[in-house]
Amino acid sequence: MAKGTSKAARPAKKPRTSATAGADTAITAPQLPPAPLSADMAAYFAKCEEKLGFVPNVLKAYAFDMAKLSAFVAMYNDLMLAPSGLSKLEREMIAVAVSAHNRCYYCLVAHGAAVRQLSGDPPLGELMTMNYRAARLSKRERAMLDFAVKLTAEPWLVEEADREGLRRVGFTDRDIWDIAAVAGFFNMSNRVASATDMRPNSVHHRQAR
Amino acid sequence: MAKGTSKAARPAKKPRTSATAGADTAITAPQLPPAPLSADMAAYFAKCEEKLGFVPNVLKAYAFDMAKLSAFVAMYNDLMLAPSGLSKLEREMIAVAVSAHNRCYYCLVAHGAAVRQLSGDPPLGELMTMNYRAARLSKRERAMLDFAVKLTAEPWLVEEADREGLRRVGFTDRDIWDIAAVAGFFNMSNRVASATDMRPNSVHHRQAR
Amino acid sequence: MAKGTSKAARPAKKPRTSATAGADTAITAPQLPPAPLSADMAAYFAKCEEKLGFVPNVLKAYAFDMAKLSAFVAMYNDLMLAPSGLSKLEREMIAVAVSAHNRCYYCLVAHGAAVRQLSGDPPLGELMTMNYRAARLSKRERAMLDFAVKLTAEPWLVEEADREGLRRVGFTDRDIWDIAAVAGFFNMSNRVASATDMRPNSVHHRQAR
Amino acid sequence: MAKGTSKAARPAKKPRTSATAGADTAITAPQLPPAPLSADMAAYFAKCEEKLGFVPNVLKAYAFDMAKLSAFVAMYNDLMLAPSGLSKLEREMIAVAVSAHNRCYYCLVAHGAAVRQLSGDPPLGELMTMNYRAARLSKRERAMLDFAVKLTAEPWLVEEADREGLRRVGFTDRDIWDIAAVAGFFNMSNRVASATDMRPNSVHHRQAR
Amino acid sequence: MAKGTSKAARPAKKPRTSATAGADTAITAPQLPPAPLSADMAAYFAKCEEKLGFVPNVLKAYAFDMAKLSAFVAMYNDLMLAPSGLSKLEREMIAVAVSAHNRCYYCLVAHGAAVRQLSGDPPLGELMTMNYRAARLSKRERAMLDFAVKLTAEPWLVEEADREGLRRVGFTDRDIWDIAAVAGFFNMSNRVASATDMRPNSVHHRQAR
Amino acid sequence: MAKGTSKAARPAKKPRTSATAGADTAITAPQLPPAPLSADMAAYFAKCEEKLGFVPNVLKAYAFDMAKLSAFVAMYNDLMLAPSGLSKLEREMIAVAVSAHNRCYYCLVAHGAAVRQLSGDPPLGELMTMNYRAARLSKRERAMLDFAVKLTAEPWLVEEADREGLRRVGFTDRDIWDIAAVAGFFNMSNRVASATDMRPNSVHHRQAR
Repeated sequence: MAKGTSKAARPAKKPRTSATAGADTAITAPQLPPAPLSADMAAYFAKCEEKLGFVPNVLKAYAFDMAKLSAFVAMYNDLMLAPSGLSKLEREMIAVAVSAHNRCYYCLVAHGAAVRQLSGDPPLGELMTMNYRAARLSKRERAMLDFAVKLTAEPWLVEEADREGLRRVGFTDRDIWDIAAVAGFFNMSNRVASATDMRPNSVHHRQAR
Repeated sequence: MAKGTSKAARPAKKPRTSATAGADTAITAPQLPPAPLSADMAAYFAKCEEKLGFVPNVLKAYAFDMAKLSAFVAMYNDLMLAPSGLSKLEREMIAVAVSAHNRCYYCLVAHGAAVRQLSGDPPLGELMTMNYRAARLSKRERAMLDFAVKLTAEPWLVEEADREGLRRVGFTDRDIWDIAAVAGFFNMSNRVASATDMRPNSVHHRQAR
Repeated sequence: MAKGTSKAARPAKKPRTSATAGADTAITAPQLPPAPLSADMAAYFAKCEEKLGFVPNVLKAYAFDMAKLSAFVAMYNDLMLAPSGLSKLEREMIAVAVSAHNRCYYCLVAHGAAVRQLSGDPPLGELMTMNYRAARLSKRERAMLDFAVKLTAEPWLVEEADREGLRRVGFTDRDIWDIAAVAGFFNMSNRVASATDMRPNSVHHRQAR
Repeated sequence: MAKGTSKAARPAKKPRTSATAGADTAITAPQLPPAPLSADMAAYFAKCEEKLGFVPNVLKAYAFDMAKLSAFVAMYNDLMLAPSGLSKLEREMIAVAVSAHNRCYYCLVAHGAAVRQLSGDPPLGELMTMNYRAARLSKRERAMLDFAVKLTAEPWLVEEADREGLRRVGFTDRDIWDIAAVAGFFNMSNRVASATDMRPNSVHHRQAR
Repeated sequence: MAKGTSKAARPAKKPRTSATAGADTAITAPQLPPAPLSADMAAYFAKCEEKLGFVPNVLKAYAFDMAKLSAFVAMYNDLMLAPSGLSKLEREMIAVAVSAHNRCYYCLVAHGAAVRQLSGDPPLGELMTMNYRAARLSKRERAMLDFAVKLTAEPWLVEEADREGLRRVGFTDRDIWDIAAVAGFFNMSNRVASATDMRPNSVHHRQAR
Repeated sequence: MAKGTSKAARPAKKPRTSATAGADTAITAPQLPPAPLSADMAAYFAKCEEKLGFVPNVLKAYAFDMAKLSAFVAMYNDLMLAPSGLSKLEREMIAVAVSAHNRCYYCLVAHGAAVRQLSGDPPLGELMTMNYRAARLSKRERAMLDFAVKLTAEPWLVEEADREGLRRVGFTDRDIWDIAAVAGFFNMSNRVASATDMRPNSVHHRQAR
């Protein structure tokens, strides 16, 4: 009765190697030796260590070239941290909903943790990574995420009616720009991360659970 | 400069209601009053309480009708717990990878926790919910999940070449049936859960992190 | 002028082997030897022979394992035959519309025949297998099938508005469960059948034409 | 217990109106009064009556304008009936596989019947309408249908490698043209039929079962 | 630091061969020797030379067989040039919007030029090839193109509500037929062109810019 | 015979308003008043005027906020103009092929013109906007665009095998990063442009034809 018996019938006997082995050391598949940090970037990395306890792996990934690293940091910090009609939590919710559409492991882990932390509602982070439509959201949040995800999935279909939908729940024209810019940014980052098999800092997995 | 200022500029002042409020009390959107538990099912619920500390919400959801509940339990327990060439972890990995394709909140929360527990490798659970292709898997695991997800996404394209792919990494014909049956079962459960807005037990969120 | 002449210019001279050769003997691609029928299942098979004149191939396919066969039969009979707000014809219409989306040969043949028989309107069976939107249906039937097919194609998009659509044409919360459960069940069966290349009983082809 | 009882609990009491009522009288949704038949077309319709016993509804649909009817007939007859490296059955198989992808009710009914008749293998017609990949086909037939369906689904992806695949199983460059032209023609007809809700002659349903 | 330097670091030194080399001589990948032109077709080709300054490559491609060429010309001229409730520009706009969905190089080049010429608004031709939704269109034009593109992308979803949408902006039942027929025709031509790698006349690139 | 006559039978009598009216004055749908240019940005705009003869509309669109404008300019110039294993033409080809997948009017017009200019082969620009697979490309170019477009369409499927494909035609790990970064950047820009209905400078339409 060989047919009924798996040739590999006891696959889990010896402990599995972790599915994320080496995440914090070999950050991307392309091997790009780090360049010397510029003074600005060295200061920024030090600030990360101090405030977060670690340097996000995406920054280490970009650190093979100071021009690229600086441009990324400047754009990221402006979009996610500068004053905006969108709260920081809202911007992180967009980041995760977009990354969920694109099934980007790096961004889901890192920004899912941010949603858990900023909201103080850990399941909200899970919902954003799994299906934002299943979350109990305000009309404003829902309209914002519907716009961001439509822009992610079928950008060619976004039109004035979609912008009107945002205005109806209170968003200004400047807010519309910010929603688009954050959604756009993660459509970029998701692809850089997926193209390079970028691994998130393992510390995120237990944050704010 | 009204255009630059959001009408809703301070959206996060008062604490947000949890995005999962009421998860453990109003389990599904359709309101179906529970039927009296049969003796068998009462015993089974008691065993769940004893072993897990809770009754999984999906069982409570089916408990409006004893015939439906019993049939579900019989099929579930046979597929996920009975002897098979697939380990229990492998069956849970299929459950989560399929549920990720279908973006099913209930199943991702409940079975993501199971993968974390059974593997002793919490990030593996995250990887299955986010993008199984980003996990460091054995050839056997990868072939198994590729088959299950193709069967989920485009079942009409599955052919002998796909079954041959499974045989090449050591799966028997009986294993092929089991992979198909588990993938099929979660394609059913994902849809019952999504159709009814089923909410997972909140206890899962912190399990095995 | 060789270019204008096919090397295989007379492909249909000798009679083609039937495109379904062996349908009633080699039911699935995985070869799983039948287990001895339990008393219950032997009685059930006998009842099939008596009432239908044959045992549906799907039952023979599951008969390599009595636990699996019993669980399948219990769930199938409850869903398709037990009292419900949905008529038996309505449940079969869901079965076929879902199977058409999934392009499942086994289920389209077997349940297409059931729609022809139960409705007394043979073209209705054809319409369900080809494009249910082209059928002249009641609002109730159309809403039911639209829900079932959306749940099949993009379960992650099903929300309260979809359930409301069903309630508006007279479906109760219990009916919504039943529509979801039947649609879910065939999303499972379609995949088990496709994964195993299951062949329908050839008798169906001429039934109720 | 109102929730458990359907408001529409007895939907099937009075006989259903046929799902195809009026198929042979109101052939398309747009109402375009027939023009007087030209001598050529009158002769052609008479020949249809004599040979088939009926005039195909698609011809009646085009008969509001003789220029359009003649052009359609000329192209159809050349493609489907003129000498070719493809047998008539092969051309009908392409017609049905393309129409199945496009879920065109008219063409599936009319050309599904043609496959049943020409092949003498009724289930082959069913297979073409349901999922041609489930049929037991020759390599030549399978390559031909794979090409036709890829050309239907994603024409922008068809390249030299696809043409090479056809040459490898014996098709000439002229055959490649014919496969493309038949597949293209049904991509046109499927859309004219769907756009106008064209109804097939009801006689097809029972042909060659 | 070999990793940072491309092995192919100076790819553009010598002039690139044109990406469309040979467009006007080797028109299709299948090599089908031209048949002698019939008197009718010779006259038609002469008229093309006289009026346009060239014979469109699609006609040369069909010229291996006079029956096919004549049928194509008859249908094309009736659809695009005969009296209709649709202006010639409108028919060309449908041609390009459909071809853009299907990403057909031949038809986009040839009919994009026609839209530029007929409209006297060169960017309109660009918009049709890129994303017709970004053009400033009348309600009538937009409804027409939305119908044509839905019919192209998902013909199985076109229903009475779509036809009603056309009637609401002033289209008659006959116009609906014409929109469907033009959209259908280019769904055919796009596929014949893609299947055969048909190359457009190079003269189009500079027309009406 | 009213049915045969369009209510709008002469739609093209009076000259159409251009489909791109106002392109150079109202650049985006959200109306965001420009901020005073910083010294750096004023110098940069002046350089654009001097070198190109105009300031690209995308820069004017970002000019409501100097931090956003500077970050965009820094990232854009690094990616598209800094030394790289990819030629400038190759980077523009990626830009257009990605924008074609996303059907982004702004980027197709602006970067299509860049491909025409840099290549000296105007049809190459057309091919990139229509279907890059129809262009006669080197193996290196084709592999590069296949990677960029897969990363655009289904980033979750990009894996080591895809990177290996690039290495096989001579790309280094650093080149892989650059391909990913350029493709990622246009996935961002396409979405910002589509979300805001950004209009390209009309001068592009006639460049390098």
